[in-house]
Amino acid sequence: MINYRYKINKNNYGNRGMCLEEDINSTNEYYIENDIALIYKKPTPIKATKVSYSNNKNIVINEGFFEKQSTTDYNGIYKGYYIDFEAKETNNKTSFSLNNIHKHQIKHLLNVVKHGGISFIIVRFNSISKNFLLESKFLENFEKENERKSIPLTYFEQYGYPINEKFIPRIDYIKIIDILIKEKTNEKNNI
Amino acid sequence: MINYRYKINKNNYGNRGMCLEEDINSTNEYYIENDIALIYKKPTPIKATKVSYSNNKNIVINEGFFEKQSTTDYNGIYKGYYIDFEAKETNNKTSFSLNNIHKHQIKHLLNVVKHGGISFIIVRFNSISKNFLLESKFLENFEKENERKSIPLTYFEQYGYPINEKFIPRIDYIKIIDILIKEKTNEKNNI
Repeated sequence: MINYRYKINKNNYGNRGMCLEEDINSTNEYYIENDIALIYKKPTPIKATKVSYSNNKNIVINEGFFEKQSTTDYNGIYKGYYIDFEAKETNNKTSFSLNNIHKHQIKHLLNVVKHGGISFIIVRFNSISKNFLLESKFLENFEKENERKSIPLTYFEQYGYPINEKFIPRIDYIKIIDILIKEKTNEKNNI
Repeated sequence: MINYRYKINKNNYGNRGMCLEEDINSTNEYYIENDIALIYKKPTPIKATKVSYSNNKNIVINEGFFEKQSTTDYNGIYKGYYIDFEAKETNNKTSFSLNNIHKHQIKHLLNVVKHGGISFIIVRFNSISKNFLLESKFLENFEKENERKSIPLTYFEQYGYPINEKFIPRIDYIKIIDILIKEKTNEKNNI
């Protein structure tokens, strides 16, 4: 999810009602400053089609376009675990269209699990002001078991974890990762 | 390390003597395709200062500048471990200037270790065609124990791991990570 307006004009930083990306970025800053986790948003890839050089020999982009991320927007480390996720908003009241996430991104999220990491999506339903964290395995299950290309809100309610918004940090998703780590450890120990 | 020329003009892909960045990118592609590891280069951050909209409502960057990476260029997962590193080339024959790596990048690499990950730098000495992997802890030790701001080649020979170039994969650094993982596990088990 990319809020280009925000990227270019940062004057709405202090406002309430920030977009999900900004809420996650400020949450990640909180985690980094408090030495809790190191999770960053990757820069948006740009394709520069025309460039020139400034007087001080720096490259100036004279024409460029935003490109799709080849993996996901966020990754990093928490308690030794590799963390990887994608965040999306929807204005739909009852479902989240899978068109919002590219096939190669879902493949990447599942690959992360295969390599021993923790991956998920965070989805915000704007109309009802609710955020959910859904593990990649439930994303995979949904795709396998359903013909339809949008995940109903009820599926998030059943298999996802709600994340309530707070003042600081805005989207405290790390508490849910703690639950996922506990499950992972239990699986390992065959409890 | 950013080779802007390459980014814009890809016609030298098949050539020998590719830059370190390209060698690492092709090595990472090999790891991904063969399901060995998921390690990617982050896109170069861009500051867009003038934008407009195309006829199909896409954003066009009319003026933009390349920015410094706030963390490091490469990260990902291998055998469940979070991996993070920076890669640099030098034309100097006898030492590597620390001016090539920003203070915030070194801080980030050390933070990664603190959070249980594996981090390092890969340095290529172009003039002698040698590559070394140096763990962050030795980067830290050097900074603590030395006034001078460049690391001599002999330090890399003593504390780093040489990486010989091969045809496929070009820079097979994962074998060294295997050694680091073994050391890490031994430390944990107090062997």
